[in-house]
Amino acid sequence: MATHKLLLLPGDGIGPEVMAEVKRLIGWLNAKGLASFETEEGLVGGSAYDAHGASISEADMAKAKAADAIIFGAVGGPKWDGVPYEVRPEAGLLRLRKDLGLFANLRPAVCYPALADASSLKREIVEGLDIMIVRELTGGVYFGEPKTITDLGNGQKRAVDTQVYDTYEIERIARVAFDLARKRRNKVTSMEKRNVMKSGVLWNEVVTAVHNREYKDVTLEHQLADSGGMNLVKYPKMFDVIVTDNLFGDMLSDIAAMLTGSLGMLPSASLGEVDAKTHKRRALYEPVHGSAPDIAGKGLANPIAMLTSFGMALRYSFDLGALADKLDAAIAAVLASGLRTADIKAEGTTPASTTQMGEAIIKEL
Amino acid sequence: MATHKLLLLPGDGIGPEVMAEVKRLIGWLNAKGLASFETEEGLVGGSAYDAHGASISEADMAKAKAADAIIFGAVGGPKWDGVPYEVRPEAGLLRLRKDLGLFANLRPAVCYPALADASSLKREIVEGLDIMIVRELTGGVYFGEPKTITDLGNGQKRAVDTQVYDTYEIERIARVAFDLARKRRNKVTSMEKRNVMKSGVLWNEVVTAVHNREYKDVTLEHQLADSGGMNLVKYPKMFDVIVTDNLFGDMLSDIAAMLTGSLGMLPSASLGEVDAKTHKRRALYEPVHGSAPDIAGKGLANPIAMLTSFGMALRYSFDLGALADKLDAAIAAVLASGLRTADIKAEGTTPASTTQMGEAIIKEL
Ligand SMILES: CC(C)[C@H](C(=O)O)[C@@H](O)C(=O)O
Ligand SMILES: CC(C)[C@H](C(=O)O)[C@@H](O)C(=O)O
Repeated sequence: MATHKLLLLPGDGIGPEVMAEVKRLIGWLNAKGLASFETEEGLVGGSAYDAHGASISEADMAKAKAADAIIFGAVGGPKWDGVPYEVRPEAGLLRLRKDLGLFANLRPAVCYPALADASSLKREIVEGLDIMIVRELTGGVYFGEPKTITDLGNGQKRAVDTQVYDTYEIERIARVAFDLARKRRNKVTSMEKRNVMKSGVLWNEVVTAVHNREYKDVTLEHQLADSGGMNLVKYPKMFDVIVTDNLFGDMLSDIAAMLTGSLGMLPSASLGEVDAKTHKRRALYEPVHGSAPDIAGKGLANPIAMLTSFGMALRYSFDLGALADKLDAAIAAVLASGLRTADIKAEGTTPASTTQMGEAIIKEL
Repeated sequence: MATHKLLLLPGDGIGPEVMAEVKRLIGWLNAKGLASFETEEGLVGGSAYDAHGASISEADMAKAKAADAIIFGAVGGPKWDGVPYEVRPEAGLLRLRKDLGLFANLRPAVCYPALADASSLKREIVEGLDIMIVRELTGGVYFGEPKTITDLGNGQKRAVDTQVYDTYEIERIARVAFDLARKRRNKVTSMEKRNVMKSGVLWNEVVTAVHNREYKDVTLEHQLADSGGMNLVKYPKMFDVIVTDNLFGDMLSDIAAMLTGSLGMLPSASLGEVDAKTHKRRALYEPVHGSAPDIAGKGLANPIAMLTSFGMALRYSFDLGALADKLDAAIAAVLASGLRTADIKAEGTTPASTTQMGEAIIKEL
């Protein structure tokens, strides 16, 4: 059995608590001989800043580059509100994405049947919802230069951010979306603001060209990002795969996640390009939820999004899809049994702590 | 009685149909001696392009500058998908906003009690909802330079858009938000992405400074735009006034409008600075909904958003708040009587065309 090298980066807030449940799962998989994982651990975000004054150390960046996959918790919190912009907690995550070339962010928004009532939307609108949001992750306004604040004198400052996209960046993310659609319901909706942004014009043009050249069998639809957001709220089931840029993807994937009522359950994968020689790709897996500093350290966090993120690693990095299916089934069974962390509690269910939920899932496995 | 000069710009799609109901209302107000309006009409968007190859003519821009207020329908449609970027329908609207200095876009998101069930959200989440979104409208990525597509050779192009904000732009929009909050529930939530964007850092800093200097009596809260979007979907009633930049405001106000189930009902006002001498401000009023080309010309459009936009003009431009209240009451009464255009139909209600709805409201008045 091949041994896989994982770097675990728990981060801040509830990150370490939910990561503990992944460690429990890895330990169990190794012990049972179902897989063979070697793990290292590192610091990222505020905890890295506290330890070495940077949001990720060079040593941990090196470990990240050497790992077969990175399992990432969450970063940030009010404790670090005052730290300089360059070393704020989020900078560690952004550097990982950029330096490892993790351009494709896959964010499934799935409504777990047992949780449909936890949504603020009507049950019939979200029940059975299954959207895949493909967000471009290493371009756009997140990384474009100039990105500055200039003092203009007279008490005036000027802030500038730059949205930049090149053809090849749009092409490769479009391909990821079309490939995924082929394995799903064969439909891609591309979102931008071409009526206002030049990057939207180019985005639309390139996605259309990739479609015409390589993916005529997939249905392609274009929506303006603002009306796309409206449709997400009103008719979410019209979507299969959504492909969009870094900033729109940030907003739209969070909104889609919230629709499902299952925020504490939703994973994400950030993937690099497939290496022509090794056929491997760099990858980072993280829950969609953030560091939730308000509930950190209380055993209240829902570990499921972190566990399903590890499940995505099994599937996308290690070709262990059958094992990932088993994990999903175990989670579904535990939910069906009525066990719930605080975020998804409902009448007639049994409250569980982070640890109890993790243990129950392994027991079910 | 003072006579007010209005420029009516019906635009494209359902624009002319819903504007017809405003004309009916103006005619009635003039005839009854309740107000005195002089109206001119102009072309904007695709209809202006078809007539003179520009999305708004210089003559109509001059009329817009001379008017006391502009009543705007909607622009755009698939018919003009292929026209050059500079003369696309939206360019006319963007030029009006920019050249008239209409920096403050007020978008109320109100859930009409009679329509709570039209929302895709649960009734208890949206019933009684009353949010005011204050969107900056003449800055940010909409107008920043460079805004270009460059051919890099080798089949590669590069698209660039630039998000720019100066201190004074953030200060003046923050004041609009705080002033509105004082007349409402005294709370402002400012949204940006300061963890990723320098403009978010400056936005946060300036809004905080204005608050500390001038509005200590108002509660100020900051949210990252992505989690703000999530909160809009999950806990919309946590908000009173939301202040945010041009692009986030575009997305978030559309989503907020959709939550209410009342998209066809919601107005907006775009206001300039108050002139030190005349104490007047330039203003444009338009419905939140778009040109809806799919239902144009069929008598299906809901004229209420257009009429309530005119109601905002009565309130904000002409100090005719009492008349605006009467209009609101008439609309509520007509809805309560069960009359409904197609977008808000429900079991047990009476279908109405655009015209029938407009006539019923005037009859009620
Ligand atoms: C933490 C932050 C920098 C990040 C982002 O904006 O990309 C987060 O919101 C996300 O969506 O992963
Ligand atoms: C028509 C378009 C340019 C406009 C915008 O993006 O501002 C519209 O979506 C709006 O919100 O008023």
